[in-house]
Amino acid sequence: MPITLAANNYGKSRVRVLKVTRHADRHDVAELTVNVQFEGDFDAVHLSADNSNVLPTDTMKNTVHALAKTWSGDQIEEFGRQLIAHFLRENPQVSRVRIEIAQTAWTRMAQSAFLRGSDEKRTSFVTGARDGIAIESGIENLIVMKTAGSAFEGYQKDRYTTLKETTDRVFATAITARWTYRSAEVPFGPCWQQARAAILKTFVDRDSPSVQYTAYAMGEAVLDAVPEILQIRLSLPNKHCLLIDMAPFGLDNPNEIFVPTDEPHGLIEVTVQRT
Amino acid sequence: MPITLAANNYGKSRVRVLKVTRHADRHDVAELTVNVQFEGDFDAVHLSADNSNVLPTDTMKNTVHALAKTWSGDQIEEFGRQLIAHFLRENPQVSRVRIEIAQTAWTRMAQSAFLRGSDEKRTSFVTGARDGIAIESGIENLIVMKTAGSAFEGYQKDRYTTLKETTDRVFATAITARWTYRSAEVPFGPCWQQARAAILKTFVDRDSPSVQYTAYAMGEAVLDAVPEILQIRLSLPNKHCLLIDMAPFGLDNPNEIFVPTDEPHGLIEVTVQRT
Amino acid sequence: MPITLAANNYGKSRVRVLKVTRHADRHDVAELTVNVQFEGDFDAVHLSADNSNVLPTDTMKNTVHALAKTWSGDQIEEFGRQLIAHFLRENPQVSRVRIEIAQTAWTRMAQSAFLRGSDEKRTSFVTGARDGIAIESGIENLIVMKTAGSAFEGYQKDRYTTLKETTDRVFATAITARWTYRSAEVPFGPCWQQARAAILKTFVDRDSPSVQYTAYAMGEAVLDAVPEILQIRLSLPNKHCLLIDMAPFGLDNPNEIFVPTDEPHGLIEVTVQRT
Amino acid sequence: MPITLAANNYGKSRVRVLKVTRHADRHDVAELTVNVQFEGDFDAVHLSADNSNVLPTDTMKNTVHALAKTWSGDQIEEFGRQLIAHFLRENPQVSRVRIEIAQTAWTRMAQSAFLRGSDEKRTSFVTGARDGIAIESGIENLIVMKTAGSAFEGYQKDRYTTLKETTDRVFATAITARWTYRSAEVPFGPCWQQARAAILKTFVDRDSPSVQYTAYAMGEAVLDAVPEILQIRLSLPNKHCLLIDMAPFGLDNPNEIFVPTDEPHGLIEVTVQRT
Repeated sequence: MPITLAANNYGKSRVRVLKVTRHADRHDVAELTVNVQFEGDFDAVHLSADNSNVLPTDTMKNTVHALAKTWSGDQIEEFGRQLIAHFLRENPQVSRVRIEIAQTAWTRMAQSAFLRGSDEKRTSFVTGARDGIAIESGIENLIVMKTAGSAFEGYQKDRYTTLKETTDRVFATAITARWTYRSAEVPFGPCWQQARAAILKTFVDRDSPSVQYTAYAMGEAVLDAVPEILQIRLSLPNKHCLLIDMAPFGLDNPNEIFVPTDEPHGLIEVTVQRT
Repeated sequence: MPITLAANNYGKSRVRVLKVTRHADRHDVAELTVNVQFEGDFDAVHLSADNSNVLPTDTMKNTVHALAKTWSGDQIEEFGRQLIAHFLRENPQVSRVRIEIAQTAWTRMAQSAFLRGSDEKRTSFVTGARDGIAIESGIENLIVMKTAGSAFEGYQKDRYTTLKETTDRVFATAITARWTYRSAEVPFGPCWQQARAAILKTFVDRDSPSVQYTAYAMGEAVLDAVPEILQIRLSLPNKHCLLIDMAPFGLDNPNEIFVPTDEPHGLIEVTVQRT
Repeated sequence: MPITLAANNYGKSRVRVLKVTRHADRHDVAELTVNVQFEGDFDAVHLSADNSNVLPTDTMKNTVHALAKTWSGDQIEEFGRQLIAHFLRENPQVSRVRIEIAQTAWTRMAQSAFLRGSDEKRTSFVTGARDGIAIESGIENLIVMKTAGSAFEGYQKDRYTTLKETTDRVFATAITARWTYRSAEVPFGPCWQQARAAILKTFVDRDSPSVQYTAYAMGEAVLDAVPEILQIRLSLPNKHCLLIDMAPFGLDNPNEIFVPTDEPHGLIEVTVQRT
Repeated sequence: MPITLAANNYGKSRVRVLKVTRHADRHDVAELTVNVQFEGDFDAVHLSADNSNVLPTDTMKNTVHALAKTWSGDQIEEFGRQLIAHFLRENPQVSRVRIEIAQTAWTRMAQSAFLRGSDEKRTSFVTGARDGIAIESGIENLIVMKTAGSAFEGYQKDRYTTLKETTDRVFATAITARWTYRSAEVPFGPCWQQARAAILKTFVDRDSPSVQYTAYAMGEAVLDAVPEILQIRLSLPNKHCLLIDMAPFGLDNPNEIFVPTDEPHGLIEVTVQRT
């Protein structure tokens, strides 16, 4: 019995994009993960290595990025529709396009600061020996982003430095904090709430010239706000949102469209204490 | 050069426990994941296979469960302290106990219904061909729990059935929903908000005689609330919270202390539509 | 327009089972994760809270366990077929059963010892300061199981102890090891290979009266085999395989059918060094 | 009490790099994930927003890539040492550098084809109704890479296309396959082994002008090798290994140093059947 190509589809999965819409009085953010799939006249690529009908999946990714620029940033259904209209119009060999979009839930904290629905934890580390007990408390996975007031300039450069200085970047992180107390008899619940509030307030209110500066300021703010806390360690991954170069598409991109990334990531850690 | 045991520690990791505190006017919940580690006089177990000083890690797990019963359910630091006091008192061979606790963030929706901070997504699935477009919208990973108003009775039994009927169980699930519209021109944002609200309201307000009944009721509620929606598919894993048998510890456990589990889990799926 | 139940299915997902077949000259193992889904006459449970047609998903899980006992342990397709035959015969209300099985790849190392295909890593930790350098090497995620020669008896008991002593258990673990060298100028590749071989040989050849004893023996074997290594730290999670009580099903279970579990797990850590 | 910066460290985590060493008779591969951490004189960045001592973590990443070029590709300990020597020499403000490296286990299948230790599964999907049974079998997560004989040229270009054509790329994928049989009475074990062998042989022996071509060829090879199989569906993510542009570092990179990525990824799916 002869063997045939019964069905085929191809595309790009997990295309990530962050759109920041800069209104006069506030920023809006939309973080999406997009899958694109094509069906159509692709027998030749499978059977005779003729790629002439194949739009590369890399181009699909670029198209998601480029069309995110003109999309309103509101309804993901509209974005899906715009992608499909584009792909069908430009690719006569394609009979069917499927777009899947998942939008991350970001909650506004301020004009340009956001909190993500996340699997945040309250933590505690208690160690006891025959001669006493030590108690630490903490927070894990407090995910936040700010789209204004973050810069990174004036750093050291060497022959391997390609990073461009910026006065305006997106700063996204998943905060882990852990602290010690003056004594084992403190109101743990209120202390935890106050520490968390001080961390968030610092993130929202203070400009960030570096993640290091912000991490230290958070620690200082916690110690200022919660007299019971003696020392705090903060660990802030810098979950880079990379500005997309749209010049090859003939578009400019004035800090609007980014690729959120998980790896590699910066990791900044500080310990701040009373002395 | 002789070889020696330089250091050792052992314990139980990822001990999960859910404590439901049943006040007259409301339930409080505390969901914890606990790690226990011992250091002490354990040379004999390593060097001469003498286990007499070893408290089994299974007993550590049972102890976490048993002491969760007497713990107030408030501060995890206190729970850590109580575990340490118990372990040091009962185990003279132990010199140092370390307890790590991570508490999941549950937000109250009602007297006995809760919403978890989670990586919830808004989703959309758009498919376009030369002759038209189809749009679906949905929700992923909407995690909820109710500690009252859930039962499971009167089911079929066979020779392999060991499950006990219950008029009062904990019902926890991570809802996925996905729906189609009457047309491609609807207000997607408000429809999504109304669908999500109808799902949560059903979960909170309606008693659940089975996951199936609740899933159907959610679908019906969405169709009632959102005329633009034509059909909805709901997928509800039953993330079982197992009541712990405390009789071996000489304790009763009137629906207070549970083990939350991820696997195996029930999976209930329904499609509800207008006809 | 009236609202109707258009489709429904329900079942149990991620039912795990390990079958050990004890031949005279060797053991065979089959580790499976099974999903079960039913379709059929279930309108009443959705619409009128009548559960009488519902076989609980807990019973599905028990059935997977019970039928694993009589299954040959060879082809998973046969096991799927046996489950379907059982469910259709016993449940006239069911029109369609779907079974999905995923079998983990275990490779034989010896008559009753196995190595899992896993994402094992070779690791290195190098720290340099102005006054010198320190080099450590290691292994992560070396997953092994032995089905004979592992016991756990004679341990301490207290009021919370329910674990039964055993002379014959399944011992499964994911080994992490990390060691230091006599100097920074050693043949790193051969040292790593010899250390890994010594760890595996100890696991295979030596009886295990406790995880602690095995962990120490592994460390000792590495130091014996690799003169360049000065100190080694081993971390062994005890990935418990729980013997299933089949008495409620009228079956005995002489160490044949287990539930592999990920949480909670024991965690045993030792540091062994030359002195 | 005054508040002080007690400790700090910063760096880059999860820097991925793949080095292909092209010997006359074979290729060697080393896939690493590297973490870099600095300690030193960084008070000013934390306290007064003076970044002049801060080598960006992006430069750390670039340095890992650049030094991977001159590293031998043999011992990861040597690579760690080279990174430390570089960082300490070029950064007088740094007192301590910590490098963590994890190397993925790739096993040679041929001169330039490799199989990864992975959590591969054998799968089966069995569906039974009152009128019959359907059996499918499959493979999940069979991870392979080839470093020669893979090209992608002659594809369609549009205004969003930036991908460069290549006659020589790295092709890495995690194969999922699933097939149906002529009947429910076939030797499932041998069929599975033969299907897996045919897939691997095609990957190793055949040049790949596109993932689509390879996917179809795999399906055809399985049908040729296993008469019992009627239809097969293959799903191949294209886990892109991106060639690093080293021109900014003054280095050329003739297909030696790549960044392996997980997202976004291509996804190519074909169904091949007898007719």
